[in-house]
Amino acid sequence: MDQTQKLPPRTVERLSKYRRLLYKYRDKDEAHIYSHRLAELLNLSPEQVRRDLMLIGLTGNHRKGYNIRALIEQIGRIIDRDEAQYVAIVGIGYLGHAVLGFIRKAETRMNVVAAFDTDKHKINTTISGVPCYDAAKMEAVIRELNIRIAILTVPPEAAVHTAAQLLRAGVRGILNFTSIHLDVPAGVYLKDYDLITSLEEIGFFIQD
Amino acid sequence: MDQTQKLPPRTVERLSKYRRLLYKYRDKDEAHIYSHRLAELLNLSPEQVRRDLMLIGLTGNHRKGYNIRALIEQIGRIIDRDEAQYVAIVGIGYLGHAVLGFIRKAETRMNVVAAFDTDKHKINTTISGVPCYDAAKMEAVIRELNIRIAILTVPPEAAVHTAAQLLRAGVRGILNFTSIHLDVPAGVYLKDYDLITSLEEIGFFIQD
Repeated sequence: MDQTQKLPPRTVERLSKYRRLLYKYRDKDEAHIYSHRLAELLNLSPEQVRRDLMLIGLTGNHRKGYNIRALIEQIGRIIDRDEAQYVAIVGIGYLGHAVLGFIRKAETRMNVVAAFDTDKHKINTTISGVPCYDAAKMEAVIRELNIRIAILTVPPEAAVHTAAQLLRAGVRGILNFTSIHLDVPAGVYLKDYDLITSLEEIGFFIQD
Repeated sequence: MDQTQKLPPRTVERLSKYRRLLYKYRDKDEAHIYSHRLAELLNLSPEQVRRDLMLIGLTGNHRKGYNIRALIEQIGRIIDRDEAQYVAIVGIGYLGHAVLGFIRKAETRMNVVAAFDTDKHKINTTISGVPCYDAAKMEAVIRELNIRIAILTVPPEAAVHTAAQLLRAGVRGILNFTSIHLDVPAGVYLKDYDLITSLEEIGFFIQD
């Protein structure tokens, strides 16, 4: 595991994409897939695909390509934790709800096991199959369920406070949909998904 | 405009965030805001805020801070195009619908003027106030409405083909929610929002 920990983020992203694509081919007749086919389906170069797979110790058969099930298994051994990965989503507004539904429909081992909100009408209901808890009980629930990853879809004014609670409760990775910048300590992995800012950034950079 | 074109993406992102925050203060009693207050609300350092605003030619008053309306206007002069920015959203599934609703509720000059889908039940309806057109007519509508930015929320297998159509029709910026890698020519600004891949990437990097 030591050397795979050093895989670059881009490689991990591509491995995740290969696997999700391969899930669709798993139950079909062919047992193998060529690197150039995988590349074509993901709009990458065959050299890129072969290099990534070589990095995790896999080489294809010249005649038949790669065994699909072996590929899925080996990618899993590299990028999955041994235990399941528990995820919480905090803030079940319009966007939070859709993000939750999107993840629940996707084939992934990322397991959303708790939602949190402050709205009494949502607390103690089930949303897209996930129980919604009172945000006031967030720290206790996150510790209890051993949740390490959180998706932050709260209103901007709640972002900093909520993130601090999440980190105190043991969360180590945050996907931040708010427009607020979060300071996280070393060892915590943060990704920002700030839609409006990204759109305005695109708008700025395409100016003539 | 020449030198502002060289602002780094991170600065443009922060300017966009400052403005969205300031919109909320515009109609309140105070006409001014201190850099440390702005910094606190966005969880940045006051030095960072002052440096960013200095880059666009603004310095605060020692006693009163920055004039809020002047700040909003000057940020607009720097990051907005002279004309409105027209945006299309392609693919009105679960996520596309929520993304559209989210943008329509946000205060931004990014103006979503067209949605596209292949579903007969959606074509020729209005979704979150935006007309939904037949995806088969996409190139013509995008040219007609002078749309330069597209949000891609189509299924993965439609991503490459749809992006090619968008670029042919004159789109110069894409916010890509699909898991598919897109090759875009120089001068086109692409941002990837691949939720599942980002979650799996977070999951990988927080492994013990």
